[in-house]
Amino acid sequence: MSTKQKRYFLAEEDIPRQWYYIQADMPNKPLPPLNPATKQPMKEEDFYPLFAKELAHQELNTTDAWIDIPEEVRDLYKYYRSTPLVRAYGLEKALGTPAHIYFKNESVSPIGSHKLNSALAQVYYCKQEGITNVTTETGAGQWGAALSYAARVFGIEAAVYQVKISYEQKPYRRSIMQTFGAQVTPSPSMSTRAGKDVLTKDPMNQGSLGTAISEAVELAMTTPNCKYVLGSVLNHVALHQTIIGLEAEKQMEMAGEYPDVVIGCFGGGSNFGGISFPFMRHNIKDGKKTRFIAAEPASCPKLTRGVFQYDFGDLSGLTPLLPMYTLGHNFMPANIHAGGLRYHGAGVIISQLLKDGYMEAVDIQQTETFKSGLIFAKAEGIIPAPESCHAIAAAIREAEKCKETGEEKVILFNLSGHGLIDMSAYDQYLSGSLHDYEVSDEDVQKNVSELEQIIK
Amino acid sequence: MSTKQKRYFLAEEDIPRQWYYIQADMPNKPLPPLNPATKQPMKEEDFYPLFAKELAHQELNTTDAWIDIPEEVRDLYKYYRSTPLVRAYGLEKALGTPAHIYFKNESVSPIGSHKLNSALAQVYYCKQEGITNVTTETGAGQWGAALSYAARVFGIEAAVYQVKISYEQKPYRRSIMQTFGAQVTPSPSMSTRAGKDVLTKDPMNQGSLGTAISEAVELAMTTPNCKYVLGSVLNHVALHQTIIGLEAEKQMEMAGEYPDVVIGCFGGGSNFGGISFPFMRHNIKDGKKTRFIAAEPASCPKLTRGVFQYDFGDLSGLTPLLPMYTLGHNFMPANIHAGGLRYHGAGVIISQLLKDGYMEAVDIQQTETFKSGLIFAKAEGIIPAPESCHAIAAAIREAEKCKETGEEKVILFNLSGHGLIDMSAYDQYLSGSLHDYEVSDEDVQKNVSELEQIIK
Repeated sequence: MSTKQKRYFLAEEDIPRQWYYIQADMPNKPLPPLNPATKQPMKEEDFYPLFAKELAHQELNTTDAWIDIPEEVRDLYKYYRSTPLVRAYGLEKALGTPAHIYFKNESVSPIGSHKLNSALAQVYYCKQEGITNVTTETGAGQWGAALSYAARVFGIEAAVYQVKISYEQKPYRRSIMQTFGAQVTPSPSMSTRAGKDVLTKDPMNQGSLGTAISEAVELAMTTPNCKYVLGSVLNHVALHQTIIGLEAEKQMEMAGEYPDVVIGCFGGGSNFGGISFPFMRHNIKDGKKTRFIAAEPASCPKLTRGVFQYDFGDLSGLTPLLPMYTLGHNFMPANIHAGGLRYHGAGVIISQLLKDGYMEAVDIQQTETFKSGLIFAKAEGIIPAPESCHAIAAAIREAEKCKETGEEKVILFNLSGHGLIDMSAYDQYLSGSLHDYEVSDEDVQKNVSELEQIIK
Repeated sequence: MSTKQKRYFLAEEDIPRQWYYIQADMPNKPLPPLNPATKQPMKEEDFYPLFAKELAHQELNTTDAWIDIPEEVRDLYKYYRSTPLVRAYGLEKALGTPAHIYFKNESVSPIGSHKLNSALAQVYYCKQEGITNVTTETGAGQWGAALSYAARVFGIEAAVYQVKISYEQKPYRRSIMQTFGAQVTPSPSMSTRAGKDVLTKDPMNQGSLGTAISEAVELAMTTPNCKYVLGSVLNHVALHQTIIGLEAEKQMEMAGEYPDVVIGCFGGGSNFGGISFPFMRHNIKDGKKTRFIAAEPASCPKLTRGVFQYDFGDLSGLTPLLPMYTLGHNFMPANIHAGGLRYHGAGVIISQLLKDGYMEAVDIQQTETFKSGLIFAKAEGIIPAPESCHAIAAAIREAEKCKETGEEKVILFNLSGHGLIDMSAYDQYLSGSLHDYEVSDEDVQKNVSELEQIIK
């Protein structure tokens, strides 16, 4: 580890007062979500049974580039923000690269990841509208922990469906949710029709985010005064996460640099969009040439190997149809440790941006991500979450390229969370028992071909 | 949780440049450590086989009240310091107390506790003197993780003996140490004479800090260019930890308050001394009347039920004799989750201060500490380490008293670390399966009576 470490913080008054909504600036707006029954574009009101009204409004808002952060939410942000922007001198030295590597450290939030940025906003709007219960799904538990915390802050009840494999593999995150007072149920469960259907067909089913979403959505639809909240994929979630990139923009200015490459790991798009969109607006509007790289797991490669197509957001087809890069909602990803990246589709904004060439994607195998995470931990002293290891691996690939070419590129990545609760994964890596998972073309083709039936 | 949360930070230039050494200001200096063979006071040189020379010098320095923090160490402090001083509005509201409660949040360090403050300093001095290997013991693993991190920073090899019960109960902390490249051995082990002796008598022995210290000391004495480092008890460790209280002093000034009560949990005294000594100097020198409360586990009650007596710091009697409050070095504490507090004795400075009436101590049962920790987690959004739960429990007791009397006392406690890696303990508490442990007078008497033989 280098002893020369440099962190940049914002003064409290410089913490952004607005989120940035890239939809307003996109040359091609995303296609609209469709009602699966009528195939007609969803209207704001169509979302009211599921979401708080303000969140439904935000979801479809394609005209306002700047959305005010409510003062109460900004006050809560101050409890852990600004998060540090760190010049990763240690990592640069470990790699022997001429690149300047920066990371935005979202792991310093009280629940250990960026997820709180949207959880606080979503629960705030629910509370404002008199909602008393929220329900959601979670994979590894980063989002569930954030939602449980936010629900506690605003005095709202939270019910979380956690993907069963993570519920069992990572009991600590379940305990954290329970410590904050949330109800946690392993998914698939017998408490919903969606869960029962899965378990009837496959009693040993280990769950997926798609299934857990079905269960949470069903609970919200059948429970009075209960709304559904989501930790990624949706437009308004990425909107709230732009606090990351907006801070980073000011902090990079303090460092006297501007990124040539911006990198985030990719599950549904919340942390990637959060770090990227504020910088991407300068590509769209000001002719900047920054590259944006989404790093997804090779075992769940929707951006690199999926199709751009209308698909459901969940397994059972309870959500609207979304235009996205997808592996098909029946795709069952392998049990990698980066539970937060085990999702079949990409958010609609990201999907449009990828289609239009504003960004790139890479897929990375699990062992490469942990190898990279370990290099980072030893160099910077922070143990990254398995999800974040994907961003680190992509950053290291870019830094290695600079080593070959001698270019002093400025690389910025988002450290979405810490891995202190994922140490069993590191144990497996260190003991050589961690697996990579291949996805066959046949499997992708099979799931994707089913999608053509949906939109007909 | 209250949404009104207030944190105080120091500007980089205001991070202290010196540690504070209370020995210089104490009216009664601590009694000297004794050579167990000759019963003569230890000289600086007598410590050289065990410690880096500068640390040996610091240990016996009773004249200098201010010790310069080496610039390189201060640069490393900047990576996580200043740590926030937080006004715990949420906790005040949850308790309905008129007290003003503040906590110093040491959990934000990269390894999650205050232990790094001394680890960085100790390894720095070792490195300066050309030492290539360090060895230590750890209980729950907070100190071991800090030492492993610091060793990585300075490029030194670390060997850690971890108390076996914690090694098995808390594999995540072991993994963290291994991730940073340390060698971790469960203690008692067959790798030392001390460990073998214990295992021969009791093959199922679950270990204690006293045993692990014996093993680490033995390794240091028998390995070339290897020194022993310790995470608590010793004077120089408490010295390094005063960065906590010195920062807190400036931050309380920013908040416009001064503490009536200062509280820390108590194992060997490092975090308690760290938060207390800078404020205590104003009691000694300026007539302030602040109360200082050390919160120890009822299952290891050396301050409240031990005797003031010369004793060994370890099980096997390899250390010098130290004048301290002790339960006897053969005392085997119950397997509470607060592994960092399972130590039979108190540091010599603390012992003298307690004897002279400058501070108080309370002992608290395990279930009360977790009950308090849960109240804190729900009110402030941070899950505390089991050790820190003792400080919280004592703070809540004081705040409840204020509720009865209506006094607006200012209570400051040290949140020594987070509990994200101790969630199994919270699980046990939430499921009602956590135990309290009584210590019988006979047990204390038996161990303590053996001490009289030592000093004869």
